Amino acid sequence: MEIIVSVTGKISAEHGAPVCGLGIGAPGVVDGEKGVVRSSGNLGWENKPLAEDLSAMLGIPVTLANDANAAAYGEYVCGAGKQYNSVVLITLGTGVGSGIVLNGKLYEGNEGAGAELRHEVIRFGGEKCACGRRGCFEAYALATALIKQTKWAMEKDRQSTLWRLCSGDIESVNGKTAFDGAQQGDKTAKQVVSNYLRYLAEGLANIANTFRPEAILIGGGISAQGEKLTIPLQKRVEKLMLGHGRYAPVKVLAATLGNDAGLVGAAMLAKNNSL
Amino acid sequence: MEIIVSVTGKISAEHGAPVCGLGIGAPGVVDGEKGVVRSSGNLGWENKPLAEDLSAMLGIPVTLANDANAAAYGEYVCGAGKQYNSVVLITLGTGVGSGIVLNGKLYEGNEGAGAELRHEVIRFGGEKCACGRRGCFEAYALATALIKQTKWAMEKDRQSTLWRLCSGDIESVNGKTAFDGAQQGDKTAKQVVSNYLRYLAEGLANIANTFRPEAILIGGGISAQGEKLTIPLQKRVEKLMLGHGRYAPVKVLAATLGNDAGLVGAAMLAKNNSL
Repeated sequence: MEIIVSVTGKISAEHGAPVCGLGIGAPGVVDGEKGVVRSSGNLGWENKPLAEDLSAMLGIPVTLANDANAAAYGEYVCGAGKQYNSVVLITLGTGVGSGIVLNGKLYEGNEGAGAELRHEVIRFGGEKCACGRRGCFEAYALATALIKQTKWAMEKDRQSTLWRLCSGDIESVNGKTAFDGAQQGDKTAKQVVSNYLRYLAEGLANIANTFRPEAILIGGGISAQGEKLTIPLQKRVEKLMLGHGRYAPVKVLAATLGNDAGLVGAAMLAKNNSL
Repeated sequence: MEIIVSVTGKISAEHGAPVCGLGIGAPGVVDGEKGVVRSSGNLGWENKPLAEDLSAMLGIPVTLANDANAAAYGEYVCGAGKQYNSVVLITLGTGVGSGIVLNGKLYEGNEGAGAELRHEVIRFGGEKCACGRRGCFEAYALATALIKQTKWAMEKDRQSTLWRLCSGDIESVNGKTAFDGAQQGDKTAKQVVSNYLRYLAEGLANIANTFRPEAILIGGGISAQGEKLTIPLQKRVEKLMLGHGRYAPVKVLAATLGNDAGLVGAAMLAKNNSL
């Protein structure tokens, strides 16, 4: 917190004007309405009134949101979701994150504990998830899940182009490897990507049937694949979701703000709160 | 539609006062905002501007909602959800229905195509669902799924109390039979109920993690089981959902308005719209 106070002071000095409000995207269960971090393993906090504490230290209003929720709001205001009213952001990386904007408003759930779409079970009794359940969306959507599948497939197929793509070093496989191999026409790589997309599409079709947003935005490291990811995903989601796009279509788009999404979103939420 | 006009006329005559507005809960994909039935297999309608058509015939404002959404709103205003701001209703009967009220407002999704929680896949590759996917929540939550499981279990256990409960006639098994048997301590019945609750709980825990409502309300025929259903369900949901009730607890409650929920909800939506 001291760092935040110090940086805020510096920014104010550099610009010769006071900082009039602060927006924060924090990991964990964050009650944005009350400005309290309910629970954050990463930060070791329980029921921490972060907004109030910081506001007292800085003398300015402080707005708090979960980091993925803030990112969703950022993409909604300035990024891939800016022409829509209702969007859901899913970030696919070493973690899976999600945020929901419904009719222009961030939806956090009671005490900020909702919007945890990564912990929706899509395969009863399936892969073990860090949350204790089995078969959560996250367990299939993580970049690490894709990497694991890529490695497995490589071990079964010593002839695959995938070996060349990682210079024979299986430990250098990353979330891009299988997509690159598929692009080059490698059958094994195509199978890995297809299998990964199958699970992703089931999760996104659930989101489409639940919220029927106008767009589902994909962020995180995997979203660098752009249309290689979003075009086949959109087709699969349409095949699975109710109505199949005959009414209320759902666009699947890559997020555009990258790592700044949370920053932009938190600032925008702070701005809204100070209006 | 002629029947609606005629009944409206009768009500007006009986009460010696004009009917000032009409609320309708209709099956299918209903765009409440625009008053259009987007798609309804039951009624054979596509993009039917029902509210506008009826309003022109009656000369009064007409408000439209999907029937399960209207029921959720009814329970929120006058039923089991009346002390909460955010509730999700799941009806368990020969069909599964769902409706979502978030921060006091009915959430329908774009063009009214959201809130279809029954078509969330909870078991990838599982039971075939009428929507074309495999493993939808509905396929496990239907009263008919419970009845099927009860019959299977009875055929495997000829000594089960379940046989006595249906006077030896397996065709008379209904959604109550397994619960009654379990109540009487029958092991096979307990197993059937436990298995049914396992799947229900997975679906409800998904809802808890997605929306984190204050309460999930159970309606439909199965809800007649009351606390025999809701108490074990609540325990199971708490075990599965994030935080396990340490923060943002979620009540699982039986709906209280029965078949009137949709009627009450549609009327309340109409009232809101005419204010």
